[in-house]
Amino acid sequence: MALYNVRTDLALEAREIATQGRETTEIPGVWSETDSADGITVTRMEIKTEEAAQQIGKIIGHYVTLEVPELRNGDTTLQDKVATSFAKEFEAFLTRIGVNEKSSVLIVGLGNWNVTPDALGPIVVENIMVTRHYFELMPDQVSPGYRPVSAVAPGVLGTTGIESSDIVFGIVESSKPDLIIAIDALAAKSLERVNTTIQIADTGIHPGSGIGNKRKGLTKDVLGVPCIAIGVPTVVYASTVVNNTMDMVFEHMKKHTANTEPLFGVFGQMDETERLQLVKEVLNPLGHDLLVTPKEIDKFMEDIANVIASGLNAALHEAVDKNNVAAYTH
Amino acid sequence: MALYNVRTDLALEAREIATQGRETTEIPGVWSETDSADGITVTRMEIKTEEAAQQIGKIIGHYVTLEVPELRNGDTTLQDKVATSFAKEFEAFLTRIGVNEKSSVLIVGLGNWNVTPDALGPIVVENIMVTRHYFELMPDQVSPGYRPVSAVAPGVLGTTGIESSDIVFGIVESSKPDLIIAIDALAAKSLERVNTTIQIADTGIHPGSGIGNKRKGLTKDVLGVPCIAIGVPTVVYASTVVNNTMDMVFEHMKKHTANTEPLFGVFGQMDETERLQLVKEVLNPLGHDLLVTPKEIDKFMEDIANVIASGLNAALHEAVDKNNVAAYTH
Amino acid sequence: MALYNVRTDLALEAREIATQGRETTEIPGVWSETDSADGITVTRMEIKTEEAAQQIGKIIGHYVTLEVPELRNGDTTLQDKVATSFAKEFEAFLTRIGVNEKSSVLIVGLGNWNVTPDALGPIVVENIMVTRHYFELMPDQVSPGYRPVSAVAPGVLGTTGIESSDIVFGIVESSKPDLIIAIDALAAKSLERVNTTIQIADTGIHPGSGIGNKRKGLTKDVLGVPCIAIGVPTVVYASTVVNNTMDMVFEHMKKHTANTEPLFGVFGQMDETERLQLVKEVLNPLGHDLLVTPKEIDKFMEDIANVIASGLNAALHEAVDKNNVAAYTH
Amino acid sequence: MALYNVRTDLALEAREIATQGRETTEIPGVWSETDSADGITVTRMEIKTEEAAQQIGKIIGHYVTLEVPELRNGDTTLQDKVATSFAKEFEAFLTRIGVNEKSSVLIVGLGNWNVTPDALGPIVVENIMVTRHYFELMPDQVSPGYRPVSAVAPGVLGTTGIESSDIVFGIVESSKPDLIIAIDALAAKSLERVNTTIQIADTGIHPGSGIGNKRKGLTKDVLGVPCIAIGVPTVVYASTVVNNTMDMVFEHMKKHTANTEPLFGVFGQMDETERLQLVKEVLNPLGHDLLVTPKEIDKFMEDIANVIASGLNAALHEAVDKNNVAAYTH
Repeated sequence: MALYNVRTDLALEAREIATQGRETTEIPGVWSETDSADGITVTRMEIKTEEAAQQIGKIIGHYVTLEVPELRNGDTTLQDKVATSFAKEFEAFLTRIGVNEKSSVLIVGLGNWNVTPDALGPIVVENIMVTRHYFELMPDQVSPGYRPVSAVAPGVLGTTGIESSDIVFGIVESSKPDLIIAIDALAAKSLERVNTTIQIADTGIHPGSGIGNKRKGLTKDVLGVPCIAIGVPTVVYASTVVNNTMDMVFEHMKKHTANTEPLFGVFGQMDETERLQLVKEVLNPLGHDLLVTPKEIDKFMEDIANVIASGLNAALHEAVDKNNVAAYTH
Repeated sequence: MALYNVRTDLALEAREIATQGRETTEIPGVWSETDSADGITVTRMEIKTEEAAQQIGKIIGHYVTLEVPELRNGDTTLQDKVATSFAKEFEAFLTRIGVNEKSSVLIVGLGNWNVTPDALGPIVVENIMVTRHYFELMPDQVSPGYRPVSAVAPGVLGTTGIESSDIVFGIVESSKPDLIIAIDALAAKSLERVNTTIQIADTGIHPGSGIGNKRKGLTKDVLGVPCIAIGVPTVVYASTVVNNTMDMVFEHMKKHTANTEPLFGVFGQMDETERLQLVKEVLNPLGHDLLVTPKEIDKFMEDIANVIASGLNAALHEAVDKNNVAAYTH
Repeated sequence: MALYNVRTDLALEAREIATQGRETTEIPGVWSETDSADGITVTRMEIKTEEAAQQIGKIIGHYVTLEVPELRNGDTTLQDKVATSFAKEFEAFLTRIGVNEKSSVLIVGLGNWNVTPDALGPIVVENIMVTRHYFELMPDQVSPGYRPVSAVAPGVLGTTGIESSDIVFGIVESSKPDLIIAIDALAAKSLERVNTTIQIADTGIHPGSGIGNKRKGLTKDVLGVPCIAIGVPTVVYASTVVNNTMDMVFEHMKKHTANTEPLFGVFGQMDETERLQLVKEVLNPLGHDLLVTPKEIDKFMEDIANVIASGLNAALHEAVDKNNVAAYTH
Repeated sequence: MALYNVRTDLALEAREIATQGRETTEIPGVWSETDSADGITVTRMEIKTEEAAQQIGKIIGHYVTLEVPELRNGDTTLQDKVATSFAKEFEAFLTRIGVNEKSSVLIVGLGNWNVTPDALGPIVVENIMVTRHYFELMPDQVSPGYRPVSAVAPGVLGTTGIESSDIVFGIVESSKPDLIIAIDALAAKSLERVNTTIQIADTGIHPGSGIGNKRKGLTKDVLGVPCIAIGVPTVVYASTVVNNTMDMVFEHMKKHTANTEPLFGVFGQMDETERLQLVKEVLNPLGHDLLVTPKEIDKFMEDIANVIASGLNAALHEAVDKNNVAAYTH
């Protein structure tokens, strides 16, 4: 389906694209609700039928998206609020999946350490409170309120020579966790989502998703245990930026005039997919259709990785103070 | 003048913009010549009159641009060729300015260590062969073929609290170099130039140029000694990407049809400046008009910084083997 | 004087060495007092006479030392206490020197970024709250309770080609601060001091001190403004470790037997200086007399640099909450 | 046996200790030969009997040690020679084990990225030419002269929560290599060996060895495929430095006098083990018996990791030019 031309790993954007031009974003077989408070918009969405999944281009499952337009401003108070909100949403996933407060968890930080916008997973892993070894080595001495948590960054195919899913499968086999949490950097449709949006999904990681273009996924089918995926868009295709902006320009101009046709001619009458195709045709031969990221990506990555690590530490361990999430990360 | 809306720190692009829609890129008062070999295009340009300077929006002086479209491929053989070509062009600047083979040089790496696309200067400085202290401490023992070279990375206003030009002025006062070479990351008009283009100019660094938006310049007037500027575009404004791509789309469509008007309507009839203005109007309120950089920026920065450092080491010291430039950097 | 064979940059250790074998550490012309609380021992010492200075091998001035044996344990609560205690001691220096709450301060982080145990200064500078530019650019809008603070890391002679004192002198000339605070990594006599001790002194930095062996100092004489030095021992000479341990072994054995002579023979009768000389004679030809540092130095540096940066931020700005020092650093 | 008090991971040092005070370092059941050229001393040793293994405290197997006292000087010509020599010795291991030129290899970089002296393995892995994925994805297009090589850095127990041997076991199970090469940082007895010595052994990695004190090993028994261990000492215990130096001091003094007893008394008559015990008794309660490393460890690690990576790239792939080993690493 041509819609998939617009590359996005976010279910929220995929639904937007699927309902573009319609009067409503509602799709039969998709349930959703949205809450907004403190500059954080939480959208909980469930794709319930195969038909809806086809239409949106994302598989059946629960998707929660936190949108925080101001998250790039470096405001630590806001960051703490997002971490707390993230922890609350994440706990709902744990409950729904049915893991209990003693279930062991393996956190997998996908992506490449040496490519800043792809390093989300490895940076989160660096900041996770790891406890599994205490349970293994001195189980009697672990304080109540903690569960066994382990964390690995398996690297990427280009630097290890092994599919990351194969590495994770091996580690799952030898360390036997009850649940996998996989963290990955994503591609979005619009620049303003980059490092301002967090998606949680109980679908695991699917082939082709994320920056690194995995060939195999991390799903319950593959790993034998459930896998919750956490993703943050950190890059956008240049062609998508162009196309997305053109849409906004057209909308902007339409508001100020009566008739679109003379305004944009043939070009304005193309649907989004045709136009994107055209933009790609122009950019690709020149090697211009790069994945781009904001200039300040280093700082943005550090901030959002800390939010996620703080949120996970709070959600996974009852003993961690939900009101002081940041105290457990560095 | 509206043209300056299109932000570029490259004289080559500024001339392109100034002559857009004309049959020729020639401008009275501007001399230029272009050589191409081995995948490297060298354009030597002189802006000779105040009138030409006004028209292009860059000040009077010599500008040499090396364009190497394949430079992002990580090919070390090509990198060495570019370093050698850069060294040759740079030596012509030394000759023209009239510094001799014993003149002392201070290399200034502008920009912020912690912002990858702004770290060009600091990374080059890390790889420069520094020799001034040998001349100070044991002048009799320095082998022939070397000159006194020092190198500093003065940081940026936001992290030091002091204008980098004030820091450099202080260091110039106390260390008395004969020549400054200032290295800075730039903004370009098109994504394909990012980390594929190097500009050398004898104009020094001017206020407002570069990523960091300096408030004061590094020029002979300010510092009392000549200043050669070396720059590499590492970022592009999202609005510029959009606009630049629209141009290409229009060109592309025009080639395949007879009449442009019905194709694009009013929008197609706007000149580039108006269109850019419109794109900015749409993006700015949303905070979308970010400076963006390619996803692989970490690796690109390392590669091009090495090219420049190798080239400078070869150009500054006669004793450095011009055919094995890379051996002197790490 | 042979005593200086034992290399230490700490006045406290220098006094210990000068009074070794005596019944008291008191020296005419030296005032001192010691407070202990919360695992932090603060020794305030003043070397008042030239004679005392000669005897100790440190120049006339005030020296405050914070000793925190548990500081390497990574306990963030203790780190915050040390930062608060440091801030209090530091404020006394500001008062004594006579700078007021509006006086501008330049913080100088000496040392080499790329040599972990020498990177104290640069890491502290990274975490300093810099405010000078706000006073320059929008003086009317700066909240009360702040002063102009700037911060630079001038690098080391081997990588810049310029004496760091010359760089600092230039920056002082062009930015005109009222006070310099210079931060440097030091050598100590004993391994247990490494990254557990902080020294503040109103003497500035003297030639030959610190890891990097400066050839010129940072003092009021050189710079024209007062200079407070903050130092942390991060390395020890192997020969000093050996000699220091031998002392402890001898003390230990003496406690358990009546007569020292047959225990150690001629070797036991040597004074510390002779023995150190002998150890050096053995180690030096083999190139074994290295400066060594604990294996965990990366983490230790980060922790103590944060303590100092937090303490400085609190001491320099009245508006910074002294009870929550860590909130202002990252 | 008390000898093991002297902590060393090097078979060469273990043999020295086992034969201390004897006229010869020969031990029945141990074969060895030594070659010296170009500042590189290669000792090939085989521990052939269980009895010899007991005596030395290292298990049966082949050990090759490269000693290069000048390796810390940063001389790139010497580094290339060492890489070539290392490659040659390593190839002999491949031949002896019986893997052929098509056998697949998994390189495991043990140790902690964030602790510089423990980061040997991860840094080597960063510089390894990884090829396994080309064989998996496009087997027909791989040039002759290469074999499938993969490389992972499994992290350490304290940061992953999983024993590194369990992680490696899982990866071996899922990626099925024919041979493991495990790289680890070691502890040595003497400071001069730190980052000047490389050990290759066909024994795999044993519990308790290396800086990180593994609880489980990486051996053929555990992994099901042969494991060659490559190690470099990067740390020494402070107590070992002291004891080792005391030995040298005693030897030095003996050379200049007739009788040792009055020189050192009871202390001089202790055997090395007793003396080390005494030194430990003195240092331990104070927490002084740290593992120490030279101040310049950052640079030393980078240099020796490059030597090993270059050597491995050359040894593993026939197509890699043995005379230009460095060209394949960065």
